[in-house]
Amino acid sequence: MGAEIIRLLAEREFPLEQLRLLATARSAGTRVEFCGRSIEIAEVDETSFTGVDLAFFCATGEASRRYAPLAVEAGAVVIDKSNAFRMDPSVPLVVPEVNPSDLYGHPGIIASPNCSTIQMVVALKPLLDAAGLKRVVVSTYQAVSGSGRDAMEELMTQIADLAAGRAPARKVYPHQIALNLFPHIDKFDDQGNTAEELKMVHETRKILHLPTLPVAATCVRVPVLTGHSEAVYVETERPLSAERVRELLQHAPGVTVMDDPERGVYPTPLAAAGRDDVLVGRIRADQSWENGLSLWVVADNLRKGAATNAVQIAEWMIAHGLL
Amino acid sequence: MGAEIIRLLAEREFPLEQLRLLATARSAGTRVEFCGRSIEIAEVDETSFTGVDLAFFCATGEASRRYAPLAVEAGAVVIDKSNAFRMDPSVPLVVPEVNPSDLYGHPGIIASPNCSTIQMVVALKPLLDAAGLKRVVVSTYQAVSGSGRDAMEELMTQIADLAAGRAPARKVYPHQIALNLFPHIDKFDDQGNTAEELKMVHETRKILHLPTLPVAATCVRVPVLTGHSEAVYVETERPLSAERVRELLQHAPGVTVMDDPERGVYPTPLAAAGRDDVLVGRIRADQSWENGLSLWVVADNLRKGAATNAVQIAEWMIAHGLL
Repeated sequence: MGAEIIRLLAEREFPLEQLRLLATARSAGTRVEFCGRSIEIAEVDETSFTGVDLAFFCATGEASRRYAPLAVEAGAVVIDKSNAFRMDPSVPLVVPEVNPSDLYGHPGIIASPNCSTIQMVVALKPLLDAAGLKRVVVSTYQAVSGSGRDAMEELMTQIADLAAGRAPARKVYPHQIALNLFPHIDKFDDQGNTAEELKMVHETRKILHLPTLPVAATCVRVPVLTGHSEAVYVETERPLSAERVRELLQHAPGVTVMDDPERGVYPTPLAAAGRDDVLVGRIRADQSWENGLSLWVVADNLRKGAATNAVQIAEWMIAHGLL
Repeated sequence: MGAEIIRLLAEREFPLEQLRLLATARSAGTRVEFCGRSIEIAEVDETSFTGVDLAFFCATGEASRRYAPLAVEAGAVVIDKSNAFRMDPSVPLVVPEVNPSDLYGHPGIIASPNCSTIQMVVALKPLLDAAGLKRVVVSTYQAVSGSGRDAMEELMTQIADLAAGRAPARKVYPHQIALNLFPHIDKFDDQGNTAEELKMVHETRKILHLPTLPVAATCVRVPVLTGHSEAVYVETERPLSAERVRELLQHAPGVTVMDDPERGVYPTPLAAAGRDDVLVGRIRADQSWENGLSLWVVADNLRKGAATNAVQIAEWMIAHGLL
């Protein structure tokens, strides 16, 4: 995801004077292209953050817990993509289209949510504002790029194996992923929920300021390279027609409505890859339950689900004098 | 599916005196192996059903509408896999583990449900009996074999294309299916529901004898060859713990519980392929909603979802003197 942020900073002409790239010893020394220049990655240590205004953290929770406080102490604002601070009550967990004003009064660290949560709350916020939310039931179809480059390579290698009639090799995942799928993303708790599912519950509540919103999630890994899809079922407090939801979402920031299914127009992961917006389609009123609505929500998990959201947080802070 | 039925009749030593194979002119003349013999497929016509006791129809709805009444007139019992008669109030729509007694008093034609419905009702019936059903919200992950051999070939060809770095060719589906997925199975109605989604609503209600059960379905095609998966969210009328659901399903006919997720034990399409039972795992009580339960339900759509169910209907009828 670090690479994706660097690409975005260039693409969006992010106002920066100097870009410093930091990593652990393993990646230090590598050179990265940025706006026609070549920048060497330095090894991170306690003194790395001197003079830094803004630090994007795209590392493990462990690394964030260790270095983010040091960066803050050195005067930097940290935008952290890891799981380390998301549920810390003093740390804002922000999707700029949804709860940007949570950024006021931040303690130096700002958390960016989990990919599958981000795209869902972007689609839900206009419904919440218009009619209130009573509950959410969501099933995901998550791409392998969420597990990193090794997983993308594993899927492509397995595809090549299958195309050649060989038994597919397996390293990253507990089961074959090519021509298969499994409801297992991250670790299980003692109730049988995965950490990914619990993130969708707790992060959604925090971002939407609905601390008791009922959310039931089932998270599934599918043989897609990039682009998470979600079948989102939502009950609103007050009635909303499908037509009205379509209208609300057409005017919602960060959302593109693709909803002309008879002509094959609905979001797919391939259509979402490389885009910064959240695609919504298959908008339907549940004929069988009052105020029930179905949405099909797809986004690029590496862009809006990760790098884009982090950069947008920084852009919002600059625009509002917080950086 | 015809081929799958022939395989099953041999495999299950179905008690038959003579097997007659019928098809339209296109397939007539082909020879098929059955228990060491070679049987030629004859061309179907008005007189084909004379002397036939039992006819499995695995054809289009149009063919069923034309020939099933002729078969019944000739004295045969028809077990029909098509959509033609499923919602006809006089025709039983049967899953033998769920509503076999609907077979009594049949009018000569018995309908076998749609694949995605069959596996769901097998998993829901024990919950209905123990605690009543209030509503169902389901998202599917459906294999390409549900669209026939051309679609399986399309997926494998696209995989070979991608492995070789070629742009994938497309013929059967409106979008690339390899490394992609889309919420589009069968035609759309004017509310934006697909016929596949409506089948899950209406067939489920008929089979479970719950004519007003609220069911919301989103049906999605995924790049898997065989094996439909379903994230089934259900609200029961009375409370049921996850432990109790596990127990009920362990003793339910046609169900195998695979639910030890920390050890990677949960159903996957690859694990279900070639099996006649319905696999259920990821059984969880919803912490956020009273009497809410999540299940992960997987079955071989060509076996239990189609051929197996049809043959089991015939077996039940023989065992109960209806054939």
